[in-house]
Amino acid sequence: MAAKPKLHYPNGRGRMESVRWVLAAAGVEFDEEFLETKEQLQKLQDGNHLLFQQVPMVEIDGMKLVQTRSILHYIAEKHHLFGKDLKERTLIDMYVEGTLDLLELIIMHPFLKPDDQQKEVNLTLIVKKAKTRYFPAFEKILNDHGEDFLVGNKFSWADIQLLEAILMVEELDASVLSHFPLLKAFKARISNIPTIKKFLQPGSPRKPPADSHYVEVVRGILQF
Amino acid sequence: MAAKPKLHYPNGRGRMESVRWVLAAAGVEFDEEFLETKEQLQKLQDGNHLLFQQVPMVEIDGMKLVQTRSILHYIAEKHHLFGKDLKERTLIDMYVEGTLDLLELIIMHPFLKPDDQQKEVNLTLIVKKAKTRYFPAFEKILNDHGEDFLVGNKFSWADIQLLEAILMVEELDASVLSHFPLLKAFKARISNIPTIKKFLQPGSPRKPPADSHYVEVVRGILQF
Repeated sequence: MAAKPKLHYPNGRGRMESVRWVLAAAGVEFDEEFLETKEQLQKLQDGNHLLFQQVPMVEIDGMKLVQTRSILHYIAEKHHLFGKDLKERTLIDMYVEGTLDLLELIIMHPFLKPDDQQKEVNLTLIVKKAKTRYFPAFEKILNDHGEDFLVGNKFSWADIQLLEAILMVEELDASVLSHFPLLKAFKARISNIPTIKKFLQPGSPRKPPADSHYVEVVRGILQF
Repeated sequence: MAAKPKLHYPNGRGRMESVRWVLAAAGVEFDEEFLETKEQLQKLQDGNHLLFQQVPMVEIDGMKLVQTRSILHYIAEKHHLFGKDLKERTLIDMYVEGTLDLLELIIMHPFLKPDDQQKEVNLTLIVKKAKTRYFPAFEKILNDHGEDFLVGNKFSWADIQLLEAILMVEELDASVLSHFPLLKAFKARISNIPTIKKFLQPGSPRKPPADSHYVEVVRGILQF
């Protein structure tokens, strides 16, 4: 039996949370090695375990994968969550890239300078972007496509990523889906897929939103 | 004969330049529709031509592709520049993602607030990152791998992207490769591939570095 994948990252969401989501949705168990200090990161760097000296890093199938998207692509492809041909793959890719842009805003927010947190990319603006740019696009996709899933008639990485984004935006504004009935139904449907249902239960490897302790740990590791 | 791909973007590098590189390297001719005004962007948005209301957008094979990486993935895959199996594909993906991180710093620099341009992500820091994080990694890859190309023994998207990055960093510091002999040889070798040699000639669709006019046009279109 192949060893479980091992995730190297601080004990929080950040750029690793989507990896946890996709592994969990694919029904893959994994181990995590949480980085707490600059020395732990240094040790990985000195041992030549990080191609570009950065985490996320995932040990999987004898490789040390880095770069969030590359890790996600590998897992999605391996577990048949990336479409049946180039056309489906490209749709999934576009939908995921849009979702990742939205997630990136939320992930980075706690690390902005206080001034920018209030002005440049404040939380109200992020919710507004979700409501005006991303969620209308996905509501339309679901409407035009008319299937239970975003691409083809099969569960894919795009569905996973969109559910993750919906739940994260709902943490900022619980009523954000009120004008998106198809997304609301989509959320209920995808949340009910057994592997995902399990991941949404307490005690799963899913991480809570960034709090001040997590921000401090990350700043300590990266020295910024 | 299929129609030429049509690129929609301002007349400058930005996020579209890598798309131009990969198309050119693949020997594909393309047309460009340059956005000059907010109204032109609005027209594309109103016509529902932009999935997430943003450019880059590329019309290709009957699709309107958006999101830089998705466009690049599609072209790389279609033109057999993305490896022969999942392992090669994953290496190409990781190398490209590292390179895109470096390019992103250079692309965004002219659009930073003047204060951040001097301090947070100044050009000296970008060159330093290239010299300490990215170029050493690629020098080591070339050394360990021992082939003319980064992955397998075949020209791939990773080679294109790295050459683009090398040339962009050299514009900031002409001697940046002085301690990277294998990258220097790589640059000469890849620059000499006929399609790329042609793209590097004057009069090709390759765009110059961002100048103040380009920055003004982009700010005008995006209203920021």
